Order: sequence, then structure tokens, then C-alpha cells
Amino acid sequence: MIETPTNQTPSATTTTPRESGGGGGAMAEPGQQLLRSFVEVAAGSHFPIQNLPFGVFRRRGSPPQAPLPPVAIGDFALDLATVADAGLFDGPALSGSPCFHQETLNMFLGMGRPAWREARATLQKILSADEPVLRDNEALRNKCLIPMSDIEMVLPITVGGYTDFFCSVHHARNCGFIFRGPQTPVNPNWFYLPIGYNGRASSIVVSGTDVIRPRGQGHPTGNSAPYFGPSQKLDFELEMAAIVGPGNELGKPIDINDAEEHIFGLTLMNDWSARDIQAWETIPLGPFLGKSFSTTISPWIVTLDALKPFMCEAPKQEPEPLPYLAEKNHINYDIPLEVLIKPKDQNVALIVTKTNFKHLYWTVTQQLTHHTINGCNMRPGDIFATGTLSGPEPDSLGCLLELTWNGQKEIPVGNLTRKFLEDGDEVILTGCCKGEGYNIGFGTCTGKVLPALP
Amino acid sequence: MIETPTNQTPSATTTTPRESGGGGGAMAEPGQQLLRSFVEVAAGSHFPIQNLPFGVFRRRGSPPQAPLPPVAIGDFALDLATVADAGLFDGPALSGSPCFHQETLNMFLGMGRPAWREARATLQKILSADEPVLRDNEALRNKCLIPMSDIEMVLPITVGGYTDFFCSVHHARNCGFIFRGPQTPVNPNWFYLPIGYNGRASSIVVSGTDVIRPRGQGHPTGNSAPYFGPSQKLDFELEMAAIVGPGNELGKPIDINDAEEHIFGLTLMNDWSARDIQAWETIPLGPFLGKSFSTTISPWIVTLDALKPFMCEAPKQEPEPLPYLAEKNHINYDIPLEVLIKPKDQNVALIVTKTNFKHLYWTVTQQLTHHTINGCNMRPGDIFATGTLSGPEPDSLGCLLELTWNGQKEIPVGNLTRKFLEDGDEVILTGCCKGEGYNIGFGTCTGKVLPALP
Repeated sequence: MIETPTNQTPSATTTTPRESGGGGGAMAEPGQQLLRSFVEVAAGSHFPIQNLPFGVFRRRGSPPQAPLPPVAIGDFALDLATVADAGLFDGPALSGSPCFHQETLNMFLGMGRPAWREARATLQKILSADEPVLRDNEALRNKCLIPMSDIEMVLPITVGGYTDFFCSVHHARNCGFIFRGPQTPVNPNWFYLPIGYNGRASSIVVSGTDVIRPRGQGHPTGNSAPYFGPSQKLDFELEMAAIVGPGNELGKPIDINDAEEHIFGLTLMNDWSARDIQAWETIPLGPFLGKSFSTTISPWIVTLDALKPFMCEAPKQEPEPLPYLAEKNHINYDIPLEVLIKPKDQNVALIVTKTNFKHLYWTVTQQLTHHTINGCNMRPGDIFATGTLSGPEPDSLGCLLELTWNGQKEIPVGNLTRKFLEDGDEVILTGCCKGEGYNIGFGTCTGKVLPALP
Repeated sequence: MIETPTNQTPSATTTTPRESGGGGGAMAEPGQQLLRSFVEVAAGSHFPIQNLPFGVFRRRGSPPQAPLPPVAIGDFALDLATVADAGLFDGPALSGSPCFHQETLNMFLGMGRPAWREARATLQKILSADEPVLRDNEALRNKCLIPMSDIEMVLPITVGGYTDFFCSVHHARNCGFIFRGPQTPVNPNWFYLPIGYNGRASSIVVSGTDVIRPRGQGHPTGNSAPYFGPSQKLDFELEMAAIVGPGNELGKPIDINDAEEHIFGLTLMNDWSARDIQAWETIPLGPFLGKSFSTTISPWIVTLDALKPFMCEAPKQEPEPLPYLAEKNHINYDIPLEVLIKPKDQNVALIVTKTNFKHLYWTVTQQLTHHTINGCNMRPGDIFATGTLSGPEPDSLGCLLELTWNGQKEIPVGNLTRKFLEDGDEVILTGCCKGEGYNIGFGTCTGKVLPALP
């Protein structure tokens, strides 16, 4: 699902920029607040000129068109292959590069931050209200600015490896309490290392893809055989995923203070979970089929560069991290997040939780460095996710397992209630940093639950 | 490491075929025992005409040559691109196909059993002693039959997904006993489903690749912080890996009685493990950095078709598997396996364990079907491994954790002893089915331990 377009002709009006602070404005690229584009961007849009998230789109219609990478600007996708063909990427990293003629972003990701920054600077320049090259070239403008209603977004990367961390202390504490009781809800290792596990890359899908309720084995009752059938405890998990850039060679860990250079950006992620399947299979090797039936990411990757104004201090860590995880800049991003459920046969999506990325205990840079400390290699396009992003409040929990305390109580969803997801329910994650005068948003990450196979 | 060549000129002598039974000869392709090749194959070779395992090689020397797929025959690699260019793949599946001009086997794997069988039949025909097309064409023969001393083997597939199962009951029982005590060494779920977890695909390497001792966190002593440094409990794990063929779409599980059609063949696998890192990190989400620093596979994929004569009944399962895992042909393969260690500065590799694939409790077809029952999709070139293949005897255990009971005792390695692996140790896995008159062997899967980073 993508933003509903409000205007389909690129024209030269703009949103009115306002003076701004943002979270960590001092660290941001100078002058971001004053930037404005000739492309009309609705007030409140997730995708002003300050954002320019990357994705991969395909034009609707037949014959099927090859996927190509754009950035989002307002209600338009800016086709980067056309921009490249027009010779507008004229910097040292991107001039002549085929990276925007690929069907995925992997090549661009592998080029690293110099290329990413050059792309961002070029695109902000050619989209700006003061720059005529695109603004005044109607033919080129109409060729490269495509209304979002004319495209569909596809998975923007080939995911070689997908790792899921478990880095919200609130989520860890609640899960431990639910499954092990109040004595030691969080295992002692949790405070020394970012706990994580390898997920299944093949079943990562883009927002808007339906999710078939999985079948599997659930806990036996008493001495009976385990239950087999459709999951009875289907859940969402609100997460964010980091997209890896250049990565590292096998045997050469990434230093904690270089880790940011290896992270291109973030997306929203719904790590759909079948709690009954997960509970029965998980001892002793961890989650497997309770997770691997589908994992949804949002189509637009928001760059760390765009997020800089929203940097904030990460939670203090006690005990102090071991030296290999001690970072000079221990920062998170202030990203308000929401989950909505649009129940079957209803027209309205209702908020079921609100939280914030900033509560994350182990930062994404700590996650990445820990991942490689044993020599494990990361490759461009690899994904690692935060784990469920629960906040400290009862209404800021990131999954139904926590919100309903494993189905012991119901939560209201409009005039309905839910313990777990029902067939036909659509789950919508969204996140948006609210700056002064502009937003840096992630769009939405959606998926509808279809009935299990017979 | 590949078989040492004994003869580097393809000539028209052969091994003497003998009458044979093999394990399940009735199910094998007819006449396999009588087949002989014009290529000289030493007695005891792993790679007679009955085997023809697939891999990917690169000619030694400069400039670097592009990788291409061969099959092994005796001490030679038969270059399949050259065979294809000569028009010798003339069946419906392979005629005109570019599958043998790829740098990996993935395309060929995706074509499925009809293509695999056609390739095998064509290759057995053109290599047979009675067939002149290659035997009497010296120029073509010298072009496509390359002495193994002139090549190096590379990773034969792009591995999209790697899963590690835990399907030896002896291994499960011993690990449970070591870590949880004698009360319930095997968790009740183990007998209902093939327990497995997602491994890390990026660090899968081909036999012969050195393995750098990983660094990481180990269990704290008392109230101290956890240890950080080189793993002090580096181990091997003797496993076999199944290579996936066509696979399945997301949401469409593979039926248990179709599963064999999705498995191209098997390799040896060493799932190197750092037991101290693994023990500290594993609660609650399973193994992660204790495994992901390196996983080695042997370069030659032995097809299930070649293994047919060595089919044998798999262990009886009690309780009976749930219907989705109940298979008409509940079979394993009789593959004797060995692990040798060549200690640092020694010239001799010494056997430290001997076991057999046939003890596997959950079969590879049950593993594959279980993997997809929730809708998870498998893709050509995905790998799933058996888990450590321990047998029932004290000298048939598949890792040092079991052989030394987690370092509580030493095992002899020649005139030395080991609790865990030391820097400079080379670990060699090998496996070979012994038929009457010929072997179906896997070659070796080797790796030497290098010291940790400073």
C-alpha cells in the first residue's frame, strides 16, 4: 500500500517551509529545513524533499515493465534510471554507473555512503524549487515523475541474509514474564549482548502482499498428540529493519564506530508470528516455522542521512557494554510508530498501539557490530531487524502477545475485540518523524490475513 | 581439497566391474553395476561412472577463468559447458539450455528431476566404454576432461537459504544430557517434528577454505562479566546437507510424497561450532554467532539418483508421525561417514569418529515437508542440513562436544589428545557408500583452523 496520491501532475507549487529544530538538528545536513521542491508535496506528507526514500517500482499495465528504482517525492515516484539517462547524476560515484538500471537496489547499496550522499545531494538539487533543470523541462519531468497511482512497489532488494534481533527491553521483559514468570523475566545474557537469530529470507515480502494463515503443530494438551492445523494465535510484530550497505568480508568484523557507514537506511517490518507454532517448536533451537511463513517490509527505505535531524540519545546501558560494543555515538532515532488493524469487512483502520523507535536498548550499530564480531560476513541488501518495538507503557506494546497477555484478555478494535488476528484482518504499520515544517515518514507496511489452506 | 589424481590422461582402460547387490538394488536404475567408463577410474575411487556428482570448478592459473559446472569422473572433471557446446545434451530438457554455462548450478537445480535424469543418462552414455562419441574424439576428450590437479572447486551454488535441522536422536539425547541432565534429555516436541533453525547462508564456504577461530562472548564465571575473546571450545559437527531443486511458491507446502522430487542431492557439511559462544547466547532464541562464522560443504553434490542403490529403511518412528509427515517411502541412505583430524604440524590425519547417515531419525523428505508446511518457500540452491550425525556407539559421535562430553575428558588423536580443536588442526569429513564393484563417494570436506584475530 502506498500513499494515496492527491495530485497527479507535477507542478511548481510547494509546501511552505517553516523554521525548524528537529531532534538533533545540529547534526543534520545544513539547510534541510529551508529546502522546498517544485513538486507539490501535501502538508503532512511522509515524502517531502528532505526525505527521498529509495524503493523499486514497476509501472502498472501490460506488458509487465521491468522493475526500476525511484525515490519518493510527495505523491510521485522519481524514476532514477531516467534521471541517470538524462545525465543528471554527474558526480564521481554515480556518473556512468549502471546502479539505477538494476531491478534491485543491491548494487547501489554496495557502493556505500559516498554514493548514497552524492545521490541524495543530486536529487535534492534537481528537485528543488530553485533549480530549473527538471522544473522547467516538461518532457523530462513528465517522463521521470510518475504518479504513485500508476505504479506498484516491489521488494526493493534481494535479501541474502535476514536476522531478527530482540532488542527492546520492554518486549524482552514482557515475553519472559508471560512464558517464564516474574522471577527472571529477562535472561542475564540479554544485558550483555544483542540477542538475535537468523530469520528466513525467502519469505520476506513487500507491503501489500497477503499473508496466508500458516498451518502447523501447536502444543499438545495433556498427553494427547500435538494439535495440527491453522494457527490459532496469529500475531503481528511491529519492528524496524536496517538495510545493509557494503558489508564486510568473512573473518573481518565491522568496528563499532564504523558500523553506521554500513547501514543504508530503515524500513518498517511486520514480523508475523504464529504464537502456538512458535511456542511448541522453539525449545531448544529457537523460532522457526512460527515466523518463516511471511515477513513484510515497507517498500520505501528511509536513509540514515534523512533521519539525522531525528537522532536522539539511546537508553543508558547498565552494565556498560563490553569494549567491542561501546560506541562513541550511542544514538537512536525519534520515530513515532503506530499499528492499526482494519478488521474484516470494516472500512476503518483503528490504532491498537503507539510506540517509538527511540526506546530501543541495543542500537542498530551495536546490532551490526555484534553480528560480525565472530567474523560473520554481511552483504549488500542483507536485513537485520530490531525485534518487537515495545515501549514502556501498556498501550505502547508492539504485538498482540503482549497487548492481550497471550490471549488472556481482549483488546478493543473499534466496536470489535481481538485476542489474536482473524482472517480478513489487515494490519497496518506506520511511522513518521515529525519535524518542524516537514515529516520524514516511512509510509505504511500492510498485509491482510487470508484463511489457511484447507 | 579434492581427490589426488593418479592419472592425468584420459585413456580407454577401466576398472573391472563386478556383480553387485548394493543396499536397495531393486530400486536402482537397472544395469548400473555393469556400467564402465573409458576413463580410467582407480579402484576405490569415490567417482566412478555410477556416481557423476555435480560441482563448479575454475581452472587454475591466470587470468582467472569463469567458474563452470562439471561432473567428477575418476580423477577428472568433465566440463559440462564443453559437452553442451559439442551438442551432446540432445534431450528435450537440456538441448539448447544455458544451464551449464552458468557460474552456479542454481539454474540446473531449478529445472527439476527430468533435467537431472536426462543429464545423468546422457553423461553415463557418453562416458561409457562402449560409446565412441567422446572416447574416440581425442580433441574433444582433451578439451572437456580436465585433470583435477588443474582445477579448484568453488561453491557450487548461490545459497539463498540455509537451514540446520537437529535430526539425530543420539545427538539430541547426548546434548540434552550434557546441558540439561539425565531427567528429560530430549524435549517432548523432538519426537513430533524435525526441530530446526535458520542458519547463516553468507558464511557457507567450500571445502578447503580456512576457518578463522571466532571471537565472542562466553559464559561469565560467578558474578563477573562474560568472557570476551577467541572461542575456547571450537568444535566440528559432522552433518550432511540436502540441496533443494525446484522448490515451492510461498504459501504452497510440499507434499511429503513429492518431497524427493525437490531434492537434487547431498553433500558433506561441517557445521563448525563455538560451544562457549553458543552456550552463552542461545537462550532464548537459539544458536547464532556460535555457528555463523563458517559452515563448510564438500564441493561435489552426489545426486539422489546415484544414491538409490544405497537406500535403506529409516528408523521406526514412535510416536507415529502426524499425517503430513507420514511418508510412503520412509527411507535413508547407507552412507558410512568418518571424521579425521590432522593436527597442527602433523602429516597424518587420524580418524576420530565413524558413523553412518542411516541412523537419521527424521528423513530428509520429512525435513523438507516440515520446512514448508507453514507455507515457507524453498528456492533452487537452498540448503538444509541434517544436524550432527551421531550414531548409537561411543565412537560414532559426530562432534567433540559429545566425544569429550563437553571437554570433561580427552580423546586420543594419534599420540596427541584433544578436548576441542586447536589452531592449525585440519578437520576432514568423508563419506562413501560401498557397493559391490563400485563406490558412490562424497570426496572430502576439509577446513583448517587459523588463529583468532588479535
